[in-house]
Order: sequence, then structure tokens, then C-alpha cells
Amino acid sequence: MSELSVNHLLGIKYLNKKDIELIFETADHFKEVINRSIKKVPTLRDTTIANIFFENSTRTKLSFELAEKRLSADVINFSASQSSVKKGETLIDTVNNILSMKVDMVIMRHPNPGAGIFLSKHVNASIINAGDGAHEHPTQALLDSYSIREKLEGVEGKNVVIVGDILHSRVALSNIFALKLQGAKVKVCGPKTLIPKHIESLGVEVETDLVKALEWCDVANMLRVQNERMDISYFPSTREYTQQFGINRKLLDSLNKEIVIMHPGPINRGVEITSDVADSDQSIILEQVENGVAIRMAVIYLLASKIK
Amino acid sequence: MSELSVNHLLGIKYLNKKDIELIFETADHFKEVINRSIKKVPTLRDTTIANIFFENSTRTKLSFELAEKRLSADVINFSASQSSVKKGETLIDTVNNILSMKVDMVIMRHPNPGAGIFLSKHVNASIINAGDGAHEHPTQALLDSYSIREKLEGVEGKNVVIVGDILHSRVALSNIFALKLQGAKVKVCGPKTLIPKHIESLGVEVETDLVKALEWCDVANMLRVQNERMDISYFPSTREYTQQFGINRKLLDSLNKEIVIMHPGPINRGVEITSDVADSDQSIILEQVENGVAIRMAVIYLLASKIK
Amino acid sequence: MSELSVNHLLGIKYLNKKDIELIFETADHFKEVINRSIKKVPTLRDTTIANIFFENSTRTKLSFELAEKRLSADVINFSASQSSVKKGETLIDTVNNILSMKVDMVIMRHPNPGAGIFLSKHVNASIINAGDGAHEHPTQALLDSYSIREKLEGVEGKNVVIVGDILHSRVALSNIFALKLQGAKVKVCGPKTLIPKHIESLGVEVETDLVKALEWCDVANMLRVQNERMDISYFPSTREYTQQFGINRKLLDSLNKEIVIMHPGPINRGVEITSDVADSDQSIILEQVENGVAIRMAVIYLLASKIK
Repeated sequence: MSELSVNHLLGIKYLNKKDIELIFETADHFKEVINRSIKKVPTLRDTTIANIFFENSTRTKLSFELAEKRLSADVINFSASQSSVKKGETLIDTVNNILSMKVDMVIMRHPNPGAGIFLSKHVNASIINAGDGAHEHPTQALLDSYSIREKLEGVEGKNVVIVGDILHSRVALSNIFALKLQGAKVKVCGPKTLIPKHIESLGVEVETDLVKALEWCDVANMLRVQNERMDISYFPSTREYTQQFGINRKLLDSLNKEIVIMHPGPINRGVEITSDVADSDQSIILEQVENGVAIRMAVIYLLASKIK
Repeated sequence: MSELSVNHLLGIKYLNKKDIELIFETADHFKEVINRSIKKVPTLRDTTIANIFFENSTRTKLSFELAEKRLSADVINFSASQSSVKKGETLIDTVNNILSMKVDMVIMRHPNPGAGIFLSKHVNASIINAGDGAHEHPTQALLDSYSIREKLEGVEGKNVVIVGDILHSRVALSNIFALKLQGAKVKVCGPKTLIPKHIESLGVEVETDLVKALEWCDVANMLRVQNERMDISYFPSTREYTQQFGINRKLLDSLNKEIVIMHPGPINRGVEITSDVADSDQSIILEQVENGVAIRMAVIYLLASKIK
Repeated sequence: MSELSVNHLLGIKYLNKKDIELIFETADHFKEVINRSIKKVPTLRDTTIANIFFENSTRTKLSFELAEKRLSADVINFSASQSSVKKGETLIDTVNNILSMKVDMVIMRHPNPGAGIFLSKHVNASIINAGDGAHEHPTQALLDSYSIREKLEGVEGKNVVIVGDILHSRVALSNIFALKLQGAKVKVCGPKTLIPKHIESLGVEVETDLVKALEWCDVANMLRVQNERMDISYFPSTREYTQQFGINRKLLDSLNKEIVIMHPGPINRGVEITSDVADSDQSIILEQVENGVAIRMAVIYLLASKIK
């Protein structure tokens, strides 16, 4: 049987094309099992997984927790707000302590880019990065690609535009890596101040005109606007943002083709996309959420088989 | 086999008498099982239930969680304080996202009256209202009636007085609906400013004199005083409240019969009732808590059988 | 089969030597099972345990929770921050309510010394004290002694020094009781203002010179410095503390023997001990964490067998 080329999922950057294919085939299997109303498989009995979240997260944490429970793993939750981290403990101490309790796998979200990579070098457990600052969010990118593959019967050769604050987005970066690896063409679109310099070096084109971007693409992945950042000088106001980079029904109808609309959630309805768009057949936003559980089951299952 | 007339438990208002009887008979069964020290039945394996609490709640949440676990359901918890709700997400988006993860049932507490009803029209899952603002708290009313039925061998024809802040109480409203449906006679008693106008239209009498109310009743259900409200002008001070609407041993002994004392908890000892009353044989407060788990098991079980 | 002499674990003070031996032998068994990668034993199916934490705690709570899950108990968590306690409910009411839901055992952390003892007299459940103010933290002392026994093949006759703020430490007090009961010799070492008067009455010697204490001992248990207390007048500054009572590599190398270093965690690296000491072979800090789960499984298992 095939296995992953890595022992951790720290970022899409560290995967190869075969890894992604293996994850998708495994997710296909789990999705089929869930759809037959078999919510729980006994695969990971005797495996303990710690969800360590140093940043708030609702849906990502819930999705991981459901994936773990459906694999019959034992789950412990550790969140920073109630944690010893505040007592001045280092990250390595915190995690080593948790691992000493015979934990097999760590799912970690952390505000610092590279926190998972650092950890994987210093502790003896399999690490899954559930978001590290503005760096990577690999399971989100995997579920995004998996959802495109499901909707459009493949990712290779597709035109995907990622719209929004590319500069601060771990979702954008992981998506760029994943899409390029699978042979998609990728453009990014957003306010100039929010597009990283030299992003072309990743094989990505910049398009600041949303209509042109949409005319070109098969899929538009609309990033979430972080309202809390909108006060800062180089950010546009929410209103300006919506006028230039928001999608509404009228805009979609004016295009010469039907494109697929994605969003990592939670949506600011009326900002990135209007409600009629979010709830239309073109949107695969809820499919993304559903696929997230299957993708996370697959990643956890494949990494767990390597530690046994 | 019988089944409920509804697909959701949004309020007692939507139930008929047979529904209540079915819930009580099912709860009898579960209570017997638990009392034989069989804490867990495999009934709801492969069912996933989400507890979504947009308001703090300790005992109600704990009671639901125990009920779910004893039915062997998989449980996920989502509480507003750590939630995306703060990020500006709408209620429907939040719940649809959770449902996309293949969740079968939603238990929701929400500060807005009607939140559960609204939700049930827009999402595809069975909803149990665990308290929606000042509107309804149906499982509380069911466990209250169930406890009266257990103690007095029936609810029909019994005289029940509900004492306290009727105006803001979802417990009072749900109890009125449930008691009337089962043929009990109901009076409400409390400060005039805290009794809704036109409450007589629900078939309830108002009695502002506590002693007269107690002389009349078989059961007194003492609502919890919300201390945080006591500063507002039309509320009495805690001291005034206790003098006029609090129950102590001496008052109970002065009555010409022994009545049953109930309280939805948590008690403000010395305010609504004194400690000697709370801990006496007349009080069925702990029985209410115990019955809460069996009632919730019954409701969840009966609604789950309708989605299968 | 042997059993404990007590129905609760309220403090080491209430145990006899045979109790400790029985707990250790039971922990040996569970540790062996876990090390054979059998993470879960079906021992406590149909037992429900409530973790009631009125103070924040990450690692103690996690350790108890893992122990409970590995025994296949059902676990409910109740933490004060989201609790009815804030609504003015008394401790007895809170716990009685939880017990009414058919909970078999209570693990409680509480800021008040004696809270567990008080509770055990008023509620009908087995209580494990997970820390009660500056009084006792018995499972910590048990895992500490167990770790010494494992490392040095026994506790009897060993010289143990406890270093730090003895006055406010429940870890120190429980350790003193446990070590004396097993025939170890105990010294305490720390700033004079932080050593209780009359502590010699517990059979303990005071040594204010750290180097002398280390020259004497086989084991040094370094208590955690509570930074939040360091502002108070009778406390030394963190810098003064480290100079007089901190351990570094150079100090350890200057001794005429190799001693074992312990710490209840979380470590303030560079304050109580430097990183090179914490991470050296002399340190058994991570073994303490690992043993904590086995010890807690043993205590829970032995107490549960008494309620059946």
C-alpha cells in the first residue's frame, strides 16, 4: 500500500503530487463511508490525538474533532486561553508535557509562522499544522482542491483565481502551492497593497481587475475579509473593498460563462459575496465544509499509519 | 410504535397531549435503565449531535451532554464565546456549516426568542430548543411536569403555582403550556410589574398574595431570581422580594397542608427559598435534575427516530 | 484483593503506607498496559466521572481526563468560568446537582483549603482532591514518589529536598506527608519568609543554604515560582530567587554526586532551573508527567471499586 512521503503535515510546500493524490483517494473512501451513514470507523482505536489551539478557531477545530472521533481516536483538547502558556511556559515544554501523557499526534494552530515546523524538529510525535500565522493552512488547501476536483472532475488545467488579502492569508499561500502542484493555473486578485511582492516567483499571475479575473477563471476562491484589519492605513475600507472585489449576482450574470464560487468561511455576507451568490448552485461553500471532515480523516489516517 | 407529531422540539406550544405522554413513557424506560446502573445504551451510535450554546449554561448543557452520551451519540460542542459568531457570521451560516459536517441534530440555546423556530425553517436537521430568550425552555417544562407526575401520580387536576418573575421567564411560559395541556390548574404569583398583561388569556390566574397561592396549590414552582436584574427600577430589591415571595419553613408549616416545592435551579438560598426548605422532603429539586437527563434522552431518542 | 482504607482521596494525610503501596502496584499495572500500546481498558464502562475545576489548570485536568478516558469512563467537564458558581450557587448545590445526574465520582480543584473534605461530608460520591488551595494536591505527591521509586528503586531512606515557596505550596505539603510515610528523609529549602513556622513538627528539617541541601540530598524537587506573587513585599525578586535557589549546570557539576531533579511543571526555564538541567538525564520531569496518568488511573480505579 502507498504511503505519504512525509511524517507530518506542516505545509503543502512539503508534499509531492502523489501525496495529494493519495490523500484524495483516501478521502474518497471516507466520504463514501460517511455517506452510507456509517459515522464511525474503528480505525484509530488506541490512538490519542491532542488538538492544541493557541488561536481561536471554531470550524477548523470542530472539523478536526469530528474527523478524529469518526476514526474512533481518543481526543484531548488544549486551548491557549485556559493554558499554561500564559504562565510563561515555552511551546516545546507545553507540547512535550502533553506528549508525555502518551499522545500520538498533535494538531496545532499557532499565531507564529513556522511554529509547527519548529515543533516537529523538537518533539517525537506526528504534527498536523492547522494554521501557523500567515504561513500555511494545508488541510484547508487540500479540501479546497478536493472540492474543485469533485465539482469539475479534476484540478489539472483549471483556471483558479484567489481574491482578497493575499498578503496575510495562509489559505492563499497553501492554495497556491496545492493548485500549482496539481497543474492548475492560478491568478491572485486584490488590492495592490495586499498582494505580496515577487508573488510571481510562485508561478502565479497578478490581476487587479476583478472582472478580467472572473472572465478568465473556472473557479473563484473568495478569501475572507478580516474586518479587524480594515482600520489600518494600507487597507481599503470595507465599502471600497466590496465595490472593487466583492461578487454579486449581477456581476456573475454579466460573465460569458458560469464559474464556481468558493469561500473558506465564515462569510461576511454582502462583503466578499452577496447572499444570493453564497446560496446559489454556483457556490460550493458547504461542500467545502463537508469535504473538510473527509480530508482531515484521510490526513490523520495516513499519518497515523506511519507512526505505528 | 408511536411517534411524536413534530420533527423538532421548539416549544411546548407545538406539542399535543399525546406527545407529552409518549415522552414521559420513553423517559420512564430510560430512567429505569439508568437506575439499573446501565449508564449507556447503544441506541444512537452513528448519530452526531451538536450542542450550540450562544448563552452560558452549565446545568442544562451538562444534562443534554449526559443524555447524548448515555444514548451513545457522538457529541460536539460549540459555544458562542469561542465562536465565529463574533466574526459577524449569521446564525444560518453557523448552523449550516456545522450541519455540513454531517451532524444529525442540533441542541441550541440562543438569547433571541424564536431563534430555534427560525432555524428549523432554514436548515435540514432536527432542532431542540434549549432556551430561546424569554420565550420557551421546553425540556425544562417537560422535566418539571414529569417530576410532578412522579411525585403526585399525575398532573391532571393538580393545582400548580409558579412564583417569581413571570414576565422574563421562559421556564414559566413553557410550564404554563405544559401544565394546561395536561389538565392542571395554574396560577402565577409575583410582583405585579413582573407579571405579563393578558396572561389570563393562557388560562392562568394571577395571585399576588403568596400565602393565598400556597394555600391553594399542590405544587409551588419557585423561579430563580435574576440578581442582575434587581437594580432596574421596576424590580423589587432582593430583600423586598424575599419578604413577599420567598418561602421559608415557618411559612410552609403555617399552611393547612403539605405542598411540593420545585425550583429550576440554581437556587439563591435564602432568597426564593431558605435552605431548610430546599433540603427538606417537600422539595423535589434534585429529582428535577435527575429527571432532566431521562427526559432529554427521551426527546432526543424520539426525534432521532424520525430523521432515520 | 486489597483495597484502599479510604473512600475518597482528599489528602495524603488520610492515607496509610499500605494504601500508597497498593496505588503504586496498580499504577505499575496500568503503566505496563499503556506501554504495550493498549491505550484503553474497558474497566470503568458505566462509570461517569465529573471533573469540576474551580481554578484554571491545564496539565492536571488533562492528565485526569486521559486517565478517565483510558479506563473507558464517561467524562463530563465542569469549569467555574462558565459555571453557575458565579450566579451565587453554593458548592454543595453545584455538586449535588451534578451528582443528581447520576455521576459516580468527582475530581475537584478548588481555591479553598479543605473544600474536598467539606464536600465529602455532604455529598454521596467519591471525591478526589485535585488541589485545594495551599492545602494538598495528593495525586501530584503520589506521582512524585512513584517517579522517585522508579528512578531510585525505592523511596525509603532516600534524602529528598523540596526547594521553593513551601508556605503556599500544596505540592510541598502533600509531598512531605507522602515521603515521610514511606520512610524518606525530607528537608525543605527556600527563602525564610516562605517557610512555614513549626514545619519541623512534620518531621522535616529546614535548610536555607541550597548548596548544603543539594550536597545532602538524592532528589531535589524544585517547586514552581509563582511570578504573580513576586511583587509582594516578603517575596524576593525573581532575580534574587534564581541567584539563591535556582539550579544550573555549573552548580550541579560542583556537587560530589549526581542527584535527581524533579519539577511539578510548568517550568520557568532560567528561574527554578536552567534549560540544560531541565533537559538533562538527571531530570525526570517528563517521567513525572507520564507517571501522572498511570497514578491517576490507579487512584480512580481503586476508589471506583469501592463504590460498586
